[in-house]
Amino acid sequence: MSKTIVALDCMGGDYAPLEIVKGAVEAVQESDQVFVKLVGKQELIEEELKKYSGYNKDALEIVNATQVIEMGESPVAAIREKTDSSLVKCQYMVKHGEADAMVSAGSTGANLVGGHVIIGRIRGVERPPLAPLIPTEQGVTLLIDCGANVDARPSHLVQFAKMGSVYMEEVVGIKNPKVGLVNIGTEEEKGNALTKEAFQLLKETDGINFVGNVEARDIPAGVADVVVCDAFVGNVILKTYEGVGSTMLKKVKSGLMANLKTKIGALLIKNSLKKTLKGFSIEEYGGAPLLGLKGLLVKTHGNSKSVEVKNSILQCITFKEADVNEKFKEKLNLKK
Amino acid sequence: MSKTIVALDCMGGDYAPLEIVKGAVEAVQESDQVFVKLVGKQELIEEELKKYSGYNKDALEIVNATQVIEMGESPVAAIREKTDSSLVKCQYMVKHGEADAMVSAGSTGANLVGGHVIIGRIRGVERPPLAPLIPTEQGVTLLIDCGANVDARPSHLVQFAKMGSVYMEEVVGIKNPKVGLVNIGTEEEKGNALTKEAFQLLKETDGINFVGNVEARDIPAGVADVVVCDAFVGNVILKTYEGVGSTMLKKVKSGLMANLKTKIGALLIKNSLKKTLKGFSIEEYGGAPLLGLKGLLVKTHGNSKSVEVKNSILQCITFKEADVNEKFKEKLNLKK
Repeated sequence: MSKTIVALDCMGGDYAPLEIVKGAVEAVQESDQVFVKLVGKQELIEEELKKYSGYNKDALEIVNATQVIEMGESPVAAIREKTDSSLVKCQYMVKHGEADAMVSAGSTGANLVGGHVIIGRIRGVERPPLAPLIPTEQGVTLLIDCGANVDARPSHLVQFAKMGSVYMEEVVGIKNPKVGLVNIGTEEEKGNALTKEAFQLLKETDGINFVGNVEARDIPAGVADVVVCDAFVGNVILKTYEGVGSTMLKKVKSGLMANLKTKIGALLIKNSLKKTLKGFSIEEYGGAPLLGLKGLLVKTHGNSKSVEVKNSILQCITFKEADVNEKFKEKLNLKK
Repeated sequence: MSKTIVALDCMGGDYAPLEIVKGAVEAVQESDQVFVKLVGKQELIEEELKKYSGYNKDALEIVNATQVIEMGESPVAAIREKTDSSLVKCQYMVKHGEADAMVSAGSTGANLVGGHVIIGRIRGVERPPLAPLIPTEQGVTLLIDCGANVDARPSHLVQFAKMGSVYMEEVVGIKNPKVGLVNIGTEEEKGNALTKEAFQLLKETDGINFVGNVEARDIPAGVADVVVCDAFVGNVILKTYEGVGSTMLKKVKSGLMANLKTKIGALLIKNSLKKTLKGFSIEEYGGAPLLGLKGLLVKTHGNSKSVEVKNSILQCITFKEADVNEKFKEKLNLKK
């Protein structure tokens, strides 16, 4: 099988280009099935690459891009005007088949807008969802959709359920993944206009393992592998996860630092506690794929370090090798 | 000032009647400004009361109710048919002025439906919101609405903002409370149809301290004192709070119990950790008031212990003494 070609936005994110380029080097060290095009300011990327040795230089190539999209910019204007930015250039490379996928820690808005406008949807996909993996007691769950397109229709949620099922099965390796609909109660008649109608449609959908409504309280316990909701609700869940997680960590730390006795106790438990809490950190899990595009876009956190960039690049390989986009088309009945 | 009369549903909740009656005894021990009507099966309540002495017996009265609403029952049917249940009887007592307020740990659905149908709204209140206090790094925040009425209109959110402001100022004692609108970004143009329109209305609303959009990530940090959203989103935030909190506690505990070394460390930090985490537990904060009714209904958690029942009863005193319902009418411009 031919190598997966990944366009990497080296100028996006809080730690660009340092951690981004480092992630690329680590990815080609870990897999010989990937070729990474490092997109961004040539001299800066060259400077970073000089720090490393012993990796396969033939698996990396620099593509110069003179502009950078800043975090505060209007996504629509940035996409239209900054055509020589690293982010937009990556998107055109996917569109033109010069890359199979792209990875960016840059502006979420510009990634989402450009994903739709430049890369474009698979014909028949109504709305491409942004679908991060979130940690649970059982492992991970796909939260789909957390994008910017709110006010979803019930038919969108059915497509999310189907694409999410394919993704969890093919990329994460969960057989027959359980699909839940986020609702304010588990009973069938609960919810708002959107969820009531979506429930009925999902119940009648073949080829997915629909387990019914799930309450947000049960998501962290791992009640479903694919959790379907509109982007507004997805955003609220994702961000409450982050906010409560971070506040609780602060509380734990202040409890440990209270006095000499607790400080001694803290020394004894530190490593073990770090290990158990690490598995429950949103940042631990690579980037969020924007699904349903002609190609793949993986959006990593703005504060991504090299490990997240590397994992996101490796995710692109699995995605391509498993032919996920073809399987989306089959599941969505988009094939002639 | 005359005493506040509270009708207490002694048969609702996981620990009824034991913890409920205990909460009433504790409340009349703590305040001489309250008279509690213990509503439920007379012989069971008498049995519980026998356990206590040294409290003011004149501040309690038993009102016999022969029926109990179970958790699985349809709220609408239960309200209609079980007119001699403790929950419905409390609601009629508020309606008929035999009590100023009621407290119940029973079925949320039956409390909400009966609140609307039996007690009734203040004339001009479009939709009575259920508004729990949730813990933050700064103290507490009022999350309004978490009720059962989803698909809210923008004008509902404006009323929630006004009533929430009065509540935080008068009952919790926060001067000029900050009001935030839950959204998926802080910029004015972000959001769905509901939040975009609500933002504009809130910006133009006099008499509230509107601080703009807030992201769910910042709620646990205490970014606003009153957090306004529709009931679907409020439910999702509340339940994600509970779910993530409980999963993280499990992770911390498993980290502490990993081996002998960590177990010794755990002994040293246990009390301090318990103290810092206690302030961040959803259950610590009394019940959630259902606002905008002719009277007050406080819904406590199903698993309420006596301290929550006591705090909920005491909340009713503040609510009445501060004349909160009259202040709602002023703030909502409902006065002639």
